[in-house]
Amino acid sequence: MFTQSPYFERLIEVFRNLPGVGRKSAERYALHLLSMAPERVYDFSDAIRAAREHISWCPICRNLTDTSPCAICASGRRDRATICVVEQPSGAMAIEKGGSYRGLYHVLHGVLDPLEGVGPEELRLDLLLKRLEDGEVKEVIVATNATAEGEATALYLARRVGAQGVKVSRIAHGVPMGGGVEYADSVTLARALDGRSRL
Amino acid sequence: MFTQSPYFERLIEVFRNLPGVGRKSAERYALHLLSMAPERVYDFSDAIRAAREHISWCPICRNLTDTSPCAICASGRRDRATICVVEQPSGAMAIEKGGSYRGLYHVLHGVLDPLEGVGPEELRLDLLLKRLEDGEVKEVIVATNATAEGEATALYLARRVGAQGVKVSRIAHGVPMGGGVEYADSVTLARALDGRSRL
Repeated sequence: MFTQSPYFERLIEVFRNLPGVGRKSAERYALHLLSMAPERVYDFSDAIRAAREHISWCPICRNLTDTSPCAICASGRRDRATICVVEQPSGAMAIEKGGSYRGLYHVLHGVLDPLEGVGPEELRLDLLLKRLEDGEVKEVIVATNATAEGEATALYLARRVGAQGVKVSRIAHGVPMGGGVEYADSVTLARALDGRSRL
Repeated sequence: MFTQSPYFERLIEVFRNLPGVGRKSAERYALHLLSMAPERVYDFSDAIRAAREHISWCPICRNLTDTSPCAICASGRRDRATICVVEQPSGAMAIEKGGSYRGLYHVLHGVLDPLEGVGPEELRLDLLLKRLEDGEVKEVIVATNATAEGEATALYLARRVGAQGVKVSRIAHGVPMGGGVEYADSVTLARALDGRSRL
């Protein structure tokens, strides 16, 4: 039967590589693709190849970019005294969407995880520390995720960056805007109370 | 900023073509793809192109296939006296997964929809009727969806196929196996009562 077609099986397998996509969704995507006009399918295929060929990591901040350095590192309108450290390009993208941050970035592409062999070298902290040498950067904001690994990475960064005499700060954790206090979990509430500020 | 990269935007746009994928999921897929090793990304791209190039519609039953005719039409082990009519290849695939159906298929690739210009010609009912001419086929089972269009298409098929002296049947509609009667909607329950069988 058709489902044994190696081309169809391969199509399902590649879709299953996507995050959160199981066998059922992958089949649905594959069947939908095969119902599309051939030129649109080739366009799909080409878009994937083109993205991989043209998008790479910025040599300065390691964010995704199709220019070298990236538009943010090259911009004359960004605040060059601040660097925000994020785990993934998606973090930088989320902060950019907010639109209020005007500084630069450093993308770790991971978190410290000694058991998995991820140390400061893999996160290229050398690149970050080198950017602090000329004294232009006054503050490093650590925006790693609020997970055990993210917190540990933040503490490590605080020590290393602090040793170079640069101010290190951590983004605030607390009740999300628009979120009711009664819906926040206890750990978030404890952090919100600890991080209270004077009105 | 990076999100303005035309390559990234194009990648998001093509992912948004997939069923049920909005902007957020498309961004997640795109970022995940860019975090994968280049050879795996090229493999993704190639799998899509290869599927489109090698998979087409069976000239007999219009199911998806990478051979001509398809494996089911060519098989000597299928019951050639029965044809099951489905709207989409996904319907045939679901029935094949059940494993109990041993007959052949006809895939409509749509339903009758006069307002959208979909008539019997678009569904290639001529191909189906032609297969009934030599008298080998004894029964046509209509497994179109239980929607207004699917029902209308089933009734139209019953008239056309019946006129050729071939038995036409409709798959049963009722409470799904494993489903509680109290959770079934009223239309389904009415169909289940109408379609009751003697124990």
